[in-house]
Amino acid sequence: MGQIGGSLDAFIGAVHRRAAVLDNEIELVCGVFSQSAEKSKQTGKALYLPDDRVYTSFEEMILREKELPEGERMDFVSIVTPNHMHFPPAKMALENGFHVICDKPMTLNLQQAKDLAQIVEQTGLVFGLTHNYTGYPMVKEARDMVRNGILGPLRKIVVEYPQGWLSKDEEHNDYKQAIWRTDPARSGAAGCMGDIGTHAENLAEYITGLKIEELCADLSTFVPGRQLDDDGNVLLRFEGGVKGVLHASQISNGEENSLKIFVYGELGGLEWHQMEPNTLKYKTQEGQRIIRPNVGNNSAAAKAHIRLPAGHPEGFFEAFANIYRNFAFAVKAHMEGREADPLYDFPSVQDGVRGLAFIDTVIASSKDDSKKWTKFVE
Amino acid sequence: MGQIGGSLDAFIGAVHRRAAVLDNEIELVCGVFSQSAEKSKQTGKALYLPDDRVYTSFEEMILREKELPEGERMDFVSIVTPNHMHFPPAKMALENGFHVICDKPMTLNLQQAKDLAQIVEQTGLVFGLTHNYTGYPMVKEARDMVRNGILGPLRKIVVEYPQGWLSKDEEHNDYKQAIWRTDPARSGAAGCMGDIGTHAENLAEYITGLKIEELCADLSTFVPGRQLDDDGNVLLRFEGGVKGVLHASQISNGEENSLKIFVYGELGGLEWHQMEPNTLKYKTQEGQRIIRPNVGNNSAAAKAHIRLPAGHPEGFFEAFANIYRNFAFAVKAHMEGREADPLYDFPSVQDGVRGLAFIDTVIASSKDDSKKWTKFVE
Amino acid sequence: MGQIGGSLDAFIGAVHRRAAVLDNEIELVCGVFSQSAEKSKQTGKALYLPDDRVYTSFEEMILREKELPEGERMDFVSIVTPNHMHFPPAKMALENGFHVICDKPMTLNLQQAKDLAQIVEQTGLVFGLTHNYTGYPMVKEARDMVRNGILGPLRKIVVEYPQGWLSKDEEHNDYKQAIWRTDPARSGAAGCMGDIGTHAENLAEYITGLKIEELCADLSTFVPGRQLDDDGNVLLRFEGGVKGVLHASQISNGEENSLKIFVYGELGGLEWHQMEPNTLKYKTQEGQRIIRPNVGNNSAAAKAHIRLPAGHPEGFFEAFANIYRNFAFAVKAHMEGREADPLYDFPSVQDGVRGLAFIDTVIASSKDDSKKWTKFVE
Amino acid sequence: MGQIGGSLDAFIGAVHRRAAVLDNEIELVCGVFSQSAEKSKQTGKALYLPDDRVYTSFEEMILREKELPEGERMDFVSIVTPNHMHFPPAKMALENGFHVICDKPMTLNLQQAKDLAQIVEQTGLVFGLTHNYTGYPMVKEARDMVRNGILGPLRKIVVEYPQGWLSKDEEHNDYKQAIWRTDPARSGAAGCMGDIGTHAENLAEYITGLKIEELCADLSTFVPGRQLDDDGNVLLRFEGGVKGVLHASQISNGEENSLKIFVYGELGGLEWHQMEPNTLKYKTQEGQRIIRPNVGNNSAAAKAHIRLPAGHPEGFFEAFANIYRNFAFAVKAHMEGREADPLYDFPSVQDGVRGLAFIDTVIASSKDDSKKWTKFVE
Repeated sequence: MGQIGGSLDAFIGAVHRRAAVLDNEIELVCGVFSQSAEKSKQTGKALYLPDDRVYTSFEEMILREKELPEGERMDFVSIVTPNHMHFPPAKMALENGFHVICDKPMTLNLQQAKDLAQIVEQTGLVFGLTHNYTGYPMVKEARDMVRNGILGPLRKIVVEYPQGWLSKDEEHNDYKQAIWRTDPARSGAAGCMGDIGTHAENLAEYITGLKIEELCADLSTFVPGRQLDDDGNVLLRFEGGVKGVLHASQISNGEENSLKIFVYGELGGLEWHQMEPNTLKYKTQEGQRIIRPNVGNNSAAAKAHIRLPAGHPEGFFEAFANIYRNFAFAVKAHMEGREADPLYDFPSVQDGVRGLAFIDTVIASSKDDSKKWTKFVE
Repeated sequence: MGQIGGSLDAFIGAVHRRAAVLDNEIELVCGVFSQSAEKSKQTGKALYLPDDRVYTSFEEMILREKELPEGERMDFVSIVTPNHMHFPPAKMALENGFHVICDKPMTLNLQQAKDLAQIVEQTGLVFGLTHNYTGYPMVKEARDMVRNGILGPLRKIVVEYPQGWLSKDEEHNDYKQAIWRTDPARSGAAGCMGDIGTHAENLAEYITGLKIEELCADLSTFVPGRQLDDDGNVLLRFEGGVKGVLHASQISNGEENSLKIFVYGELGGLEWHQMEPNTLKYKTQEGQRIIRPNVGNNSAAAKAHIRLPAGHPEGFFEAFANIYRNFAFAVKAHMEGREADPLYDFPSVQDGVRGLAFIDTVIASSKDDSKKWTKFVE
Repeated sequence: MGQIGGSLDAFIGAVHRRAAVLDNEIELVCGVFSQSAEKSKQTGKALYLPDDRVYTSFEEMILREKELPEGERMDFVSIVTPNHMHFPPAKMALENGFHVICDKPMTLNLQQAKDLAQIVEQTGLVFGLTHNYTGYPMVKEARDMVRNGILGPLRKIVVEYPQGWLSKDEEHNDYKQAIWRTDPARSGAAGCMGDIGTHAENLAEYITGLKIEELCADLSTFVPGRQLDDDGNVLLRFEGGVKGVLHASQISNGEENSLKIFVYGELGGLEWHQMEPNTLKYKTQEGQRIIRPNVGNNSAAAKAHIRLPAGHPEGFFEAFANIYRNFAFAVKAHMEGREADPLYDFPSVQDGVRGLAFIDTVIASSKDDSKKWTKFVE
Repeated sequence: MGQIGGSLDAFIGAVHRRAAVLDNEIELVCGVFSQSAEKSKQTGKALYLPDDRVYTSFEEMILREKELPEGERMDFVSIVTPNHMHFPPAKMALENGFHVICDKPMTLNLQQAKDLAQIVEQTGLVFGLTHNYTGYPMVKEARDMVRNGILGPLRKIVVEYPQGWLSKDEEHNDYKQAIWRTDPARSGAAGCMGDIGTHAENLAEYITGLKIEELCADLSTFVPGRQLDDDGNVLLRFEGGVKGVLHASQISNGEENSLKIFVYGELGGLEWHQMEPNTLKYKTQEGQRIIRPNVGNNSAAAKAHIRLPAGHPEGFFEAFANIYRNFAFAVKAHMEGREADPLYDFPSVQDGVRGLAFIDTVIASSKDDSKKWTKFVE
């Protein structure tokens, strides 16, 4: 794997690296970690990479690696730059024969997303998107239960994602994360809704297998001077008459990273919280059952994503690593000319397109008070 | 106190009676417990009432009690009938000089509510409404914290009230509660939104002191054949630019009575769950503090509504009893020609008017897809 | 009911009164609320009692009430004085034909307890002891599950009761509760172990139906100058080879009233916490089920002690009221010459004897380092 | 790093490997993964090791690696075999100049432990023991709070470790883990107490900085035919008059891996649960504060062991990885002739000696009913 972005002072770069190596299926062999050649070099050194595999631009990396013999050159690139720098390297990597795994939201805008989807299709290469929350075993279990009809036909979905870290004007406090995330040029048209609203949207669609058909959004920017939304409340209508609510926030003071989902059907309900990810609550009018990794009979889907015995908590890195490992399995299958095993799923370029479409739809809806419902069009 | 409604097989009648007597300030002296004279008599007997204080109609009770000497006759009536039978006895009782405490929603429709408000004003008598969830000590504490600016100017309010008890077609299962609650003639224009949506609305306005100005609602009826909504999702806009979400449901399978509220301001946030009512979470970006009854310094408002030392859980009856006791204090003050102490507050006829206005507004909004926002007009 | 003790400034008196009236089966008709005639009078007045039913000594109350006609005179006495004042009024009440319900620990010492048991037996009157924690519906459910073999033969019991309210030298801070509870003359030979250790012991024996056969205790007094133990750790051996741990503390800083019990058998385990009393966790290696009042099928034993629908929390007063109501049922049955229904059980004089024997045994064990195990002898 | 033990079907081998690589400070370069040469080869292959670095015995590995040039040969060995196979390779590795990190309990018996301590001292090499639970950031925080006197002088420590996985006779169900853990020849003199009791003992001493001085134990074997204890309850006396309770179990049916610790001092208390490792509860009589990673001001000790922002759960692997990373830092410091930074601490050979002494003491105490207290002698 070659990494684009993720210098030592970036948060998400190290997350991807740790996730990549956890299962001993992936090795970091090269990278361009920063626009600053100096920073990139330092990072490469700290990562024990040889100097000649630390590059100064993604173009250089892709072209130089391509010249290396197979088996030695990187097999895929991992893109962990700010959003505006996802599309160019992804496109170039794919066009030069490298598989790609990329942070979310997938691109800066919907057009790029659609273009990328086309390139992926044309090249036939493997593309993965790190909607990492779908990598949790209990999320797999939840999806499996819905698929198997344990909840009956669905009726209602509530997904919420409050954070509080942008409650103040952090972008003027020299806080790197805050600066780019609130900058439309680097983050895209949405702030909170792009960063975490898309996670919520993806999680809801992933677990339920249902697509949002229309929505009604009310986005806000509470912190004076901020350029993008920092809070949003959305009514959802899914296919099949299923109703829903999605709300996300980065000004919910005192909240950490509190992604939660509640799914209700004719026969039962489910509840899952990202901050206690190893507990899935399954509720019916007859009572509540606590579902936990490696306690009793987990689904095959969950089992394939658990590494430890009951009561040994796996967390954020392990869920992230599940995305990477599954992506690696697909790359391997591709190399060997096999179909990848669908048990080891991971978010696709189509998920990425839906994420960008979600961003466009909530913004359009929020701006328009003249009608209640805005169609979700990819 | 004389009770109207609440025969032995009714749930809420006994709740009111237990709440009334808990603090030894109120005594049940008479009642008309059912439209069936037989049932009423049986109930009176079970409650150790003398036969001559058990009546066959509310009209009879009001008129006969009025003739009894002061000190012997009931001081107020407690109305615990289905919604359509709130207004007539309330009106007659007030017009005959009796204070009234009444279950919610206050009346069958907004017009009745406004009429009742006028009667209350004209008579100058005490009127209480049992939005019982505002009686919890930690709700008082939350309100006090907001009032004292501990959260800073508010930004966002999320209030949710999922239940699952109407997930199936219970109204055709000879389930008394389900039958009248889903019958427009007895319940009013809304089902779920009238029964519990109004509690959520009242709680949000009570704690924050803010009024909803406009809203956008999506009500549903999921159970085939049901006449009223059994689920609703609402975007809220409060005065002062504060945003919110309210969702309530009676088809959230496996949920018991899960009223929760989250309030976020510039300086901090609060979280409270009705099912664990003795815990109030106060959160800032610096950390979370657990506020509990009689642990450390509670506010005067909370202290006035706690009966037990730390760790001795008070619950639903005690919160309900706080409404009754405070109402009784106000009745006493009225009798003695004093102002009632505002520390011992309870929901008023104006809260009742807002509840009915809320019902009308969410229904109007839900029916109209041609605009996003519907003004909340009392 | 006539009450002995429980003036306005005493905590437990009002608890008993509220518990007594909650179900409309018991009425307070007289009392002697304090050794001070003045205080007693004030309390009676606040409780709306007629002056001539407020007495100045328990002897006077018992004798004067006895002279009143049946139906008018009190049916039983409720004793809520400090421990040293339990035995004398209990004895006299029984000997004069009054049933008795009494706070715990039952008497000042084991000899009094045994004497009282004999008097109860001789008089054939009803005696109840307010080990109130056994009144919780989920405790009834737990006991029912054990009885029905759902856990299989038991193996291990852990019961813990940490409080923190005596972490400091509160008995010298003019804190009435602290003063008498740490005074051997009024509290008896044990402090923490008498006040709350006996609750833990009673709860463990109640749920499991097993008796402690021997134990090994390590009691401590951490606060300098304190006369009685404020903390204790005990290894338990129950009949049938079941092992256990009991620890109780009043210096566990920051703990409120955190009584918890864990019971493990060959087939499954149970967990219950007093501070979240409406949740019973039932665990097996196949998973965990949450048992809640009125959710699904509760046992008949639990159902008989629940007043509200699912999700409406009942708490300390309601559990306490279950003891009172069941005692009242037994009194009624006695009056009517019937056997009381064992579904409506309550702690007995024999439970009280075991409580005092427990106190004696832990003290004896704690003082003697020369052997590990001390027999539990009543 | 070269690994001894940990073939593909062993649980703990992969844990060590994942923990080792997570922070990109350690690389697996060789190993002998099983007594079976075939299995060892297969494991090495699956781990992408070159054939010539996969050995057939630890002796071979140590001698052959020693001959490799520095920089190429392994820097240290990681020992993940059953307990009886800890001492021989540890001894040989140290005597041949390799640092050692080893699973716990450190050796088969106390004599080996003392011998190993002596060898470590003589060689001056780095030795680490994977009492992994001390690697959690909130455990570091807890220790830091105790050290800084935030709890005041300590009074009471409760540590409990219930598991349920050996509730049945799993050792006769062809369950590999169960077989060796219940076999005295491979596990040592204790079963439950060796496997998890030592973790509890280590955690209590780590957080509080206090040593157990004497104890009173009651060990049990509940499953018929089992050779070692599967449950134990222990009264503890720490230095300075601090009292405690430790109980551990592998027959607590339905428990997963529920290590918990409660520490109380004159000024406050702490509570930590391994299964929700990112929450530390800090309690005083004034209220409870929730301490979480990267929320507000964590201690330097905690911060040095956190990788993610608030609300992104780190779990078992990350805590384990903290032990490995800190050990690696110490190895690096040793290589560079520096003192290791004490901020990056990890369990030592002395911790291992105490663990074996704990095992011996609880067994001695449990066997002897003639006295209450048994001295804890290393």
